Amino acid sequence: MARAPESGTDAGGIFLGQTSYGKSDVRLVKVRRDTDRHELTDVRVDVALEGDFEAAHVRGDNTGLLATDTIRNTVYALAKEHLTGEIEEFGKKLVEHFLEAGPAVERVRVRFTEHLWDRITVDGREHEHSFVRAAGERTATVEGDGGGLRVGAGIDDLLVLKTTNSGWEGFLRERYTTLPETDDRILSTVVTADWTYHGTDVDFGGVWRGVREQLLATLTDHYSPSVQNTLYRMGRAVLERFSEIEKIHLSLPNRHHIPYDLQRFGIENEGEVFHADPDPTA
Amino acid sequence: MARAPESGTDAGGIFLGQTSYGKSDVRLVKVRRDTDRHELTDVRVDVALEGDFEAAHVRGDNTGLLATDTIRNTVYALAKEHLTGEIEEFGKKLVEHFLEAGPAVERVRVRFTEHLWDRITVDGREHEHSFVRAAGERTATVEGDGGGLRVGAGIDDLLVLKTTNSGWEGFLRERYTTLPETDDRILSTVVTADWTYHGTDVDFGGVWRGVREQLLATLTDHYSPSVQNTLYRMGRAVLERFSEIEKIHLSLPNRHHIPYDLQRFGIENEGEVFHADPDPTA
Amino acid sequence: MARAPESGTDAGGIFLGQTSYGKSDVRLVKVRRDTDRHELTDVRVDVALEGDFEAAHVRGDNTGLLATDTIRNTVYALAKEHLTGEIEEFGKKLVEHFLEAGPAVERVRVRFTEHLWDRITVDGREHEHSFVRAAGERTATVEGDGGGLRVGAGIDDLLVLKTTNSGWEGFLRERYTTLPETDDRILSTVVTADWTYHGTDVDFGGVWRGVREQLLATLTDHYSPSVQNTLYRMGRAVLERFSEIEKIHLSLPNRHHIPYDLQRFGIENEGEVFHADPDPTA
Amino acid sequence: MARAPESGTDAGGIFLGQTSYGKSDVRLVKVRRDTDRHELTDVRVDVALEGDFEAAHVRGDNTGLLATDTIRNTVYALAKEHLTGEIEEFGKKLVEHFLEAGPAVERVRVRFTEHLWDRITVDGREHEHSFVRAAGERTATVEGDGGGLRVGAGIDDLLVLKTTNSGWEGFLRERYTTLPETDDRILSTVVTADWTYHGTDVDFGGVWRGVREQLLATLTDHYSPSVQNTLYRMGRAVLERFSEIEKIHLSLPNRHHIPYDLQRFGIENEGEVFHADPDPTA
Repeated sequence: MARAPESGTDAGGIFLGQTSYGKSDVRLVKVRRDTDRHELTDVRVDVALEGDFEAAHVRGDNTGLLATDTIRNTVYALAKEHLTGEIEEFGKKLVEHFLEAGPAVERVRVRFTEHLWDRITVDGREHEHSFVRAAGERTATVEGDGGGLRVGAGIDDLLVLKTTNSGWEGFLRERYTTLPETDDRILSTVVTADWTYHGTDVDFGGVWRGVREQLLATLTDHYSPSVQNTLYRMGRAVLERFSEIEKIHLSLPNRHHIPYDLQRFGIENEGEVFHADPDPTA
Repeated sequence: MARAPESGTDAGGIFLGQTSYGKSDVRLVKVRRDTDRHELTDVRVDVALEGDFEAAHVRGDNTGLLATDTIRNTVYALAKEHLTGEIEEFGKKLVEHFLEAGPAVERVRVRFTEHLWDRITVDGREHEHSFVRAAGERTATVEGDGGGLRVGAGIDDLLVLKTTNSGWEGFLRERYTTLPETDDRILSTVVTADWTYHGTDVDFGGVWRGVREQLLATLTDHYSPSVQNTLYRMGRAVLERFSEIEKIHLSLPNRHHIPYDLQRFGIENEGEVFHADPDPTA
Repeated sequence: MARAPESGTDAGGIFLGQTSYGKSDVRLVKVRRDTDRHELTDVRVDVALEGDFEAAHVRGDNTGLLATDTIRNTVYALAKEHLTGEIEEFGKKLVEHFLEAGPAVERVRVRFTEHLWDRITVDGREHEHSFVRAAGERTATVEGDGGGLRVGAGIDDLLVLKTTNSGWEGFLRERYTTLPETDDRILSTVVTADWTYHGTDVDFGGVWRGVREQLLATLTDHYSPSVQNTLYRMGRAVLERFSEIEKIHLSLPNRHHIPYDLQRFGIENEGEVFHADPDPTA
Repeated sequence: MARAPESGTDAGGIFLGQTSYGKSDVRLVKVRRDTDRHELTDVRVDVALEGDFEAAHVRGDNTGLLATDTIRNTVYALAKEHLTGEIEEFGKKLVEHFLEAGPAVERVRVRFTEHLWDRITVDGREHEHSFVRAAGERTATVEGDGGGLRVGAGIDDLLVLKTTNSGWEGFLRERYTTLPETDDRILSTVVTADWTYHGTDVDFGGVWRGVREQLLATLTDHYSPSVQNTLYRMGRAVLERFSEIEKIHLSLPNRHHIPYDLQRFGIENEGEVFHADPDPTA
C-alpha cells in the first residue's frame, strides 16, 4: 500500500498496490496403486493468486474471492486425476484451473516442495510399498497469467562438503581484515538451485536428476579458489549440459569449518579437527 | 546465470547475472554504559553486497573481494562508535562504509532483526541493568548505491487474535467450495509489516512505536469481513497517521481456528472450543 | 524392550518393558464468553497413557486401546465444560477421565504448554476481545494412577539478561583451560522452571505469577559468581516464599556473550560490544 | 531443589538435589587424512557432569569446577588423538578423562549425534574427499561413574512409510470415538531407537548398520495391526539378531495420513489422495 505521488483518489492519495493471497503448506501425499509396485509423491504445495482484489480489500466485498479453503480442496481434488507423474505436469493443471476459477485472478503461481523417498531394500530387492526418506528436496514452480505458462524447478537442502582441494587466498586486506589466507580448507555448503525452462514440454524428472548429478560432479572436479568460482562452474556446467534450461540461480552459503586452535595445548592440527560454525554466510 | 539470447561471448552464450554475497546472521549485542542505567541493543545483522564480482566468479580472482569474515569484524568494530541509538542510524554508517571499503561494491543492503527486551520491574521500579525478553521483533533495512540512502523499517512476529467481531461471508461458491459462511469467527494472524521512509532523517524509534500501536488499535476498531479488508484498514491507518512513511507492505497469514465439532457428542459449541490449525495461509 | 536376565518366557527371554502411548500436540483454544469481556486460553496438550498394553504389542489385539483420535476428541469435548479457569483444574478432570475410560490404563500424565496473551490496550483501556501474544510459556503437569493426583507447574522460554553484576572467577585451571577470569560479564539464560505442589488445591494462577515475579526479582538482587549460584538462589527464594511448593527444578543454560576482540583494530571494548554465541550450554 | 521432609539443615529445610552441568552442542568435525581417501566424522557432542557441586551452588565457590569452555576445548583436543574410528570409542576416552579432570565429578555422560555423509559418486566411483549429506542420524551415549562404563547407541530421525499392509481395527469404541476402522491405511513414522550394550567391546559400526537394516526389514515383513505391534516386532527382531544388545527402546510416533474426503466432489478416493497431518502422535 502506498501514498500516491500526487493525490487524486477518494482515499486521499493512498492506493493499494499489487496484492496476492493463497494457501500455503498444503501437505499432499499421493499414492499410485495401478500395480502392486506403488508410486509415492509427498509434496507441500503453495498456491498464490494475484489479481484485482481491490473490492475485497477496500470495500470488504468478498464476492469474487475463492476461499483459501476452496484452494486447498481443489489441490487435493485435482491430484486424484492429474498428479500421475512429475509434479511440474500437475502444476500446469493447477495454474490453468485457478486462472479460470477465480474471476478476479490474473496470475497464478504454484510452488512445490517435494520430499524424496527411496524404496526400502530387503535382501537386495526394492520393496513394492515401503519407503525410507532420503535427504534433500526437489522443488518446482509453475506460473501463468493467461498468456502462457512458465515452468521452473530446483533443488533444496542439498548439503555437500569437500575435506580438501579448496582454498581462499588473495582477497582484499584492509583495516578490519584478520582472516589468514589458506590453500587447504573444508568447503561446505547447502546448495539451493532454481532454474527455469525454455518451454513447458520437458523430461522434468530426467533433467532434474541430471542437474543434481552435474552439480555434485562439478563440485568435485576442481580446486575451489572461492565459493563464488565454484558456484559459477556449477551453474555453467548445468547450462552447457542441458539446453532445456534457460537460466539457473544458485545459492551456496558458506558453512565455515574453523580449524580448532590446538597449539595452545601443544597439539598440532593439520586440517584434522574443526569447529563447524553454526553461523551461515550467504 | 543465464544463456544469452544470442551467443557472442567466449563462454558460448552463457553469462553471469547479478551476483551478491555477504555475511548474514551476525549476532551483535551492544551495551551502552554511560550511566548506571544501561541501554541494551540485541540485533542480528545481515549484510549483502552487490557489484561487479565477475573476476571472482569467472576467473577465481579474489583481489577485489572483502572476506565475509572482514564484513563481520567490521560490523562489530563500527558498533562501538556508531551504534549509539536507533539501528537505522547505525545502518546508514554501515552502508556508507561498505560502499567505500569494497572496490567492486556497487550496492549495499543491511538488514537488522532486533530482539526486544523489557527492563525487569522489581517493587514497581525498572531495574537498571536487568532485562526480560519481550515478544516480537523490530526490523530495519538500509540500502545504498552511492547515489543516496533508502531506509525502511518493520515489525516481525507480532501475533494477534480477536475472539469475535470477525467473519467471512459472501465469498465465491463453486464446485470445490465446502466452507460454511460465518459472521463470528476467531481472527488470528502473525503480522509482518515492512515500510519505507520518504527521507533518511526520521524519528525512527518514535515512528516505530507509533506504527505498532496503530496496527493494534486498527485491528480492534471494526468488524472484520476478511483478513484482506483488515489488512487494508491497518495499512491505510498507518499511512494516514505517519506522513514520513512512503509505502507499507503487510502480510497477515490467516491462522485458522476451527470450531471443534462437538455435536457428535451431543455438546453444543458456540464459539468456545477451537482447534488451532498449524497450517498457515499466506 | 529387553532381554531377561534368565530365559523363561515363550519369547525366548525377551520381554516388553514399560510402555506408554498417547496424543501429543493437541492445539486447544478455549474462549469464555460469559460476558463481553472474553477470556482466552491457548494451550497445547500432551496426553500420555501408561498401562498393560501387552496384548496390543505382542499379539496385535487392540481391544482395550483408546484410539489416539479418541483422546484428542476427549480433550476438546471436556474442555467445553471443564476448562473454565486454571489449566491445572482441567488437567485433574482429564486424568480422572482417562483413568476410567481406558480399561488397561494404569497411569495418566497430562502436560500443558500455554501460550500467553495480553489484552491489547487502546487509549489506555484493555480491549474486551483483542489480544497480542506475550513472550514465554506457562506449563503444567497433572499425573494420576488411581491412588491420587500430583500437580506440577512451570515456566518455559523465559529469556533474561543482566548486562553487569555477574562474573566467573576462581574456577579450576588445568591443561585445557584457556578462558580468562572475569568479574564483569553479561549473564544471559533461558529459564526453564518445573515445580510440584504439596497438594492439589492451590491458587494455581496466583502462585504461578508469584514464582515468575520471584525468579526475576532474585536474578537482579545479587552479584552472580556463577550461573549455578544464581540458580540456587532463585530456587531457594521460591521455596521460601511459597510453602505450597514441594520442590523445584531449574535449568539455566548459559547463553554466552563474548566480548568481541576489537583491540586488533586499535579499539577499546570495555564491556560494550559482544558476540552472542548461538551455542547453548546446559 | 526441594524442601526436606523435616527441617534440620541451616537452610531451613531446603536442600539441593542432584545437580549436573556441562557443555552441549559442541560441533566437532574430524577429518582423517592418513591416505588420499579421507574419512569424515561430523558430530554434535553433549557432555554432562554430575557430582558434588554444592560449594558452587550454595556458596558461590567455583574452586572445583571445570569451566564449560574447558570442556569444549577438551573435546576438540582429545578428538585429535582419540577420534580415529567409531564415536563410541571416543566417548569412552572422554568419560574417563572427565572423571579424572574434575575433582567433584562423580558421573559423566557423553552423548553424540552424528550427521551421516555419503561419498559423492562420479562416473560410478566414490570420490576420495567429497561428500553429500545423507538422511537420518546416528547417536551414541557413554556413561561412567568410576565403577565402569556403559555404552549405548541409537538412530534418530529415520522416517519410514508404508503405503499399504497396515490397519487399525478392533480398538475400543466409546462416547468420544469417531474414527472408523480400517484394514488399509498409510503407516508413517519417524523412528527413534536407543539401545544399550552388554559390554563395552563391540563392533559398534557393524551392529549399528545391522540394527538399521533389521528395523527397515521388519517394518516391511508383516501386516501391521497397530504401531504398537510393529514396534514390538522391530524391537524383538533386533534383540533376537544381536546378542550384544541388552535392551532397546523404540519410539514410533504416528504421522497420520488422512484420506482426503473427495466424495463431496463426486470423486472416489481409494487410498490414493492423503492429507499428511502435521500433528504428531507419540
